[in-house]
Amino acid sequence: MSAWVLPDHIADVLPAEARLIEELRRELLDTASGYGYELVMPPLLEHLESLLTGTGEALRLQTFKVVDQLSGRTMGLRADSTPQVARIDAHLLNRQGVARLCYCGPVLHTRPDRPHATREPLQFGAEIYGHAGLEADLEALLLALDCLKAVQVRDLTVDMADTRIVRALLAGLSLSDDAVARVHAALAVKDAGELARLAKEFPAAVREALLALVSLYGDEQVLDEAQGRLPDLPGLREALANLRWLAGHLQGAKVSFDLADLRGYAYYTGPRFAIYASGASDSLVRGGRYDEVGAVFGRNRPAVGFSLDVKELVPVAARRPLRGAIRAPWADNGNGGALRAAIAALRSRGETVVCAMPGHESEADEFLCDRELARAGDQWVVKAI
Amino acid sequence: MSAWVLPDHIADVLPAEARLIEELRRELLDTASGYGYELVMPPLLEHLESLLTGTGEALRLQTFKVVDQLSGRTMGLRADSTPQVARIDAHLLNRQGVARLCYCGPVLHTRPDRPHATREPLQFGAEIYGHAGLEADLEALLLALDCLKAVQVRDLTVDMADTRIVRALLAGLSLSDDAVARVHAALAVKDAGELARLAKEFPAAVREALLALVSLYGDEQVLDEAQGRLPDLPGLREALANLRWLAGHLQGAKVSFDLADLRGYAYYTGPRFAIYASGASDSLVRGGRYDEVGAVFGRNRPAVGFSLDVKELVPVAARRPLRGAIRAPWADNGNGGALRAAIAALRSRGETVVCAMPGHESEADEFLCDRELARAGDQWVVKAI
Repeated sequence: MSAWVLPDHIADVLPAEARLIEELRRELLDTASGYGYELVMPPLLEHLESLLTGTGEALRLQTFKVVDQLSGRTMGLRADSTPQVARIDAHLLNRQGVARLCYCGPVLHTRPDRPHATREPLQFGAEIYGHAGLEADLEALLLALDCLKAVQVRDLTVDMADTRIVRALLAGLSLSDDAVARVHAALAVKDAGELARLAKEFPAAVREALLALVSLYGDEQVLDEAQGRLPDLPGLREALANLRWLAGHLQGAKVSFDLADLRGYAYYTGPRFAIYASGASDSLVRGGRYDEVGAVFGRNRPAVGFSLDVKELVPVAARRPLRGAIRAPWADNGNGGALRAAIAALRSRGETVVCAMPGHESEADEFLCDRELARAGDQWVVKAI
Repeated sequence: MSAWVLPDHIADVLPAEARLIEELRRELLDTASGYGYELVMPPLLEHLESLLTGTGEALRLQTFKVVDQLSGRTMGLRADSTPQVARIDAHLLNRQGVARLCYCGPVLHTRPDRPHATREPLQFGAEIYGHAGLEADLEALLLALDCLKAVQVRDLTVDMADTRIVRALLAGLSLSDDAVARVHAALAVKDAGELARLAKEFPAAVREALLALVSLYGDEQVLDEAQGRLPDLPGLREALANLRWLAGHLQGAKVSFDLADLRGYAYYTGPRFAIYASGASDSLVRGGRYDEVGAVFGRNRPAVGFSLDVKELVPVAARRPLRGAIRAPWADNGNGGALRAAIAALRSRGETVVCAMPGHESEADEFLCDRELARAGDQWVVKAI
């Protein structure tokens, strides 16, 4: 096989797209910074047990492993930065109050998440630690929406769920992990027949509630309907009230609910959200509350956050116009000083000045040069081409 | 061992340093963009043979290997982006004329390069392809110097060498690889005794020239001295003339020469440079001409470039003042609309506004808040704290 062939689901990012990704990256980080989220850079490599503690089997399968030649121990290449940021909050910062952290860097997956997904997402995320109230959930949601608005992604829908609903319904049943997994699978594909079969030995109230969940998706009326059709269990009641409060504070955003949605069940401990844009096949942003995430690092702080793959924004973010560059002749000994000074002055004002290498003056410009630096008397001036 | 302990030579980057690295990263990329270098993002993972073709044994030992579950083939985690960018120039862009490319991303090393080095450098680099003349070497050098000036690294020295000098001297001798390696090792540590012993069977002119190299380091006089003491061989003469031309065009930069310097011997095919700053223990920038780099990808274009580790700039780059943030109360239902609008307006002007979570108002600010948003009548105004 040729040396230039890349592995499947691994790709180079070429100039036009790389420039857009770099701009998106800066806009996302600047938006988070505007909310007071401080940037951290966790490493690509960690001891495997640090990366995977408490995160469940899915992440384990997604994580590439290598042996550390210095210690002989197994290290993992991060497949998700969230546990790393929880570790930083728990151990390195060790703050008593609220901590707001953000990050942006590559993660690696052994297999693509979806048929056309990359195995090297560029993960951007923000996390808020130390506040158990819904205000933290709301701030994470508002920041996620502002991030997408900053990169000009249009027609956003916030989809909300809460894993506590199903958890409350199944709480008294002492089911095997396997039985719980089958219920989850049936809910995920909204298969009422399978669900009825699985739940036929369950108490009638639970069975009816699970079957009701299958149709409890849509706009805010879903919450009213849920209040009528689901049993009045403590975790469930709180979940519905939390979703109603959060939706009520998202002025202007389109919100939908899917109470059977269990994505991230092993992970989230409260409200969960995903943000969709028209034109994107999957959710762009996934986030929610995961209060247990720092527990394995010895500090179980309330935590809410979200993440997204910057590369997934490329098809839906607004294209930025390429700023034209200025073409300049090569500064030889004859014209050197004044020309070099003119070039330096233009560059210091943020202009791109491309100097033609001797012998390459007639090359078609790959870089979009819409102006040139030309001699006018004893001055160098910028002229349109 | 605790879950929060990181592998040796692997570290988290915490907020104060992460902010600086992000600023350095942007300034470096913007400087390269000002010269017309287009950003590319090669992947972290490639088939091992793509990463290592023609790069020599050193990089092979530095490269982490993983098995691709999709193909069963061995992949490597890049330890150096230069061969990747050569592959992009050779195959993906396939331009006939000059191509200028830059990149900035993490690389991973199985072992640290130096006793206190990280195994996860953040490699920034720029490459110019398609021009065989010295103007490309000069542009790479000037860009490298401008990059360091942009991040306010002071007291720079450019150290120049050329692997063609030793290559020309040893060219007629048909030495074993092992014998060549021993000569290189003796030159590297400037061990004249060992060199005399190794060269005792060499022709007298070669032996004397090798011994002369040991003392041929210092300022531009070294080139005059070399012309008198070294034999007039074609490659050698050209190398000395090239170094003189380049040094003559680096107005204002402090230049030194070390004609026995062989770092990157397997790699470079012409002038080589390293840039030092007072206060940094090793060179910050390493670069030069490596015309053969694209050959394995089927397109042997002239190439010059340089790279640096952004993390190594942290101790020597000027510290940026932390811009103060504005503290705001939480926008509840009573004061919501006007307060939220005031916060959004401040953020859109580039300010950081940190909203105090209810119950956390009295927390000491980790984020440096030097102002607060306070109600004055029916307005929200920014006041000094």
